Amino acid sequence: KRSIFLTVREGRSLCGMLHLVQMYPPLTDFLSSGLYRWAGDANTFDGDDYIEVVCSPSNPDGSIREAVLKSKSGKDIHDLAYYWPQYTPITQMLAHDIMLFTVSKCTGHAGTRIGWALVKDKEVAQKMSKFMEQSTIGVCKDAQLRAAKVLGAVTDGYEHQLATAAGGDANLLFHYARRKMAHRWCALRAAVAASGIFSLPNEVAGFCTFTKDTVTSNPAFAWLRCEKQEVEDLESFLRENKIITRSGTKFGADQKVVRISMVDTDEAFGIFVNRLAAIK
Amino acid sequence: KRSIFLTVREGRSLCGMLHLVQMYPPLTDFLSSGLYRWAGDANTFDGDDYIEVVCSPSNPDGSIREAVLKSKSGKDIHDLAYYWPQYTPITQMLAHDIMLFTVSKCTGHAGTRIGWALVKDKEVAQKMSKFMEQSTIGVCKDAQLRAAKVLGAVTDGYEHQLATAAGGDANLLFHYARRKMAHRWCALRAAVAASGIFSLPNEVAGFCTFTKDTVTSNPAFAWLRCEKQEVEDLESFLRENKIITRSGTKFGADQKVVRISMVDTDEAFGIFVNRLAAIK
Repeated sequence: KRSIFLTVREGRSLCGMLHLVQMYPPLTDFLSSGLYRWAGDANTFDGDDYIEVVCSPSNPDGSIREAVLKSKSGKDIHDLAYYWPQYTPITQMLAHDIMLFTVSKCTGHAGTRIGWALVKDKEVAQKMSKFMEQSTIGVCKDAQLRAAKVLGAVTDGYEHQLATAAGGDANLLFHYARRKMAHRWCALRAAVAASGIFSLPNEVAGFCTFTKDTVTSNPAFAWLRCEKQEVEDLESFLRENKIITRSGTKFGADQKVVRISMVDTDEAFGIFVNRLAAIK
Repeated sequence: KRSIFLTVREGRSLCGMLHLVQMYPPLTDFLSSGLYRWAGDANTFDGDDYIEVVCSPSNPDGSIREAVLKSKSGKDIHDLAYYWPQYTPITQMLAHDIMLFTVSKCTGHAGTRIGWALVKDKEVAQKMSKFMEQSTIGVCKDAQLRAAKVLGAVTDGYEHQLATAAGGDANLLFHYARRKMAHRWCALRAAVAASGIFSLPNEVAGFCTFTKDTVTSNPAFAWLRCEKQEVEDLESFLRENKIITRSGTKFGADQKVVRISMVDTDEAFGIFVNRLAAIK
């Protein structure tokens, strides 16, 4: 059967490793299934029978993506791991057939390995449940309880603000996280300007219907390019400068670009921008 | 490739559902892998290329099992989920090539979904790690921390006893759990005698090298048979008497036998034995 099919695993959406383009083929073909196989980039795919995975905002570059294939028998899976107000303006209510989410990027609890899906077709939802039952019986109960508590704390913050008409947003997770991300992007752009040999994607802005203001996006990853001609392998060049990144080659791009995590600890992020600014 | 292959999933050994014989074929063949297929009962298997799963003590009947196939190219996986002193005398140090364990049956933390494996062949161990990395990136960190804490508390209890030469065993998990299980088996046998229409497997005893005494086994499940001729479907008959069990048919046996959990709460277990004793 000529199709791409990517399975939903225990308590996680298809985020993280699956964003590394180089990891798709081994993951999809690992068990040599007769039901599905890796069929490559959707942009070059020819056929009607497929599952297309759409990561939006995209990892690594934070851009908003839509399905490129259109077929009645094909299916789309929308990975919305990064569709939260701290990373991007929430410009619309999405209503795709299959939408995946995770606490990993929403609240930062990646290790808890809990995700959820919104699925329109009951039959598809039942198949997803059946797969999880077959492969694991059920997700870790400790993790489920912890994730429920974490998400409850986030919504409690917003409900409290509504109930008390409080003006501050100190306890509002998405507001806090957006300030944090905006601050980091500001620091990164200053470091890039200080160095002079790098470039970043242009800032993208939009009206966020969640926070009711116009904001720029602050992706969880920076897609950093080197403009210096003699640097051919940027990942190696940065490693020599004590900065660990992931090469663009791992995402189907060239080796003059790398992906940098914007969500490390304050301390590590501070060291990183200082080192980057000093590179000439 | 003519073989049985059962995969090790996130943080759990092949316990629980995999003990239900009826679940093996759908689990093994779920993804129609070209690498392996379900090949049926090891006792009737003909070939050299296989993976045999040996559950010992066996679920449902608590008996000690050994691999039945012998071939240089075949591999055995020993599921030792129930090989703990509360269920069975630990009669020997096992040293099989691949041995699986779980906190589920060891300490009762089934929902934490953490298991571990002892593997002799480094290459096999690396393949198992690779599989977990491919399928899940990694096991829930909360669960790992909790399991480490739980197992630490158990070993601390025994180390404290050794260090202080304390006589009591109130804080020793396996001693506590064995007393609990022995008490429950005693209550179950009394209920079976009071009813008069059921039978249980004979008690098996052995010298336990862990607790240094001769004890009977106290399986986590009771394999209850009905001797009354007019009861054909024991699971249905017991359900009419407000007792929920699993039919022998789910384990490859007949429907005059059922599996009963011996590890429910005190309250539920108490209600169960009272109801069972009253059945005539």
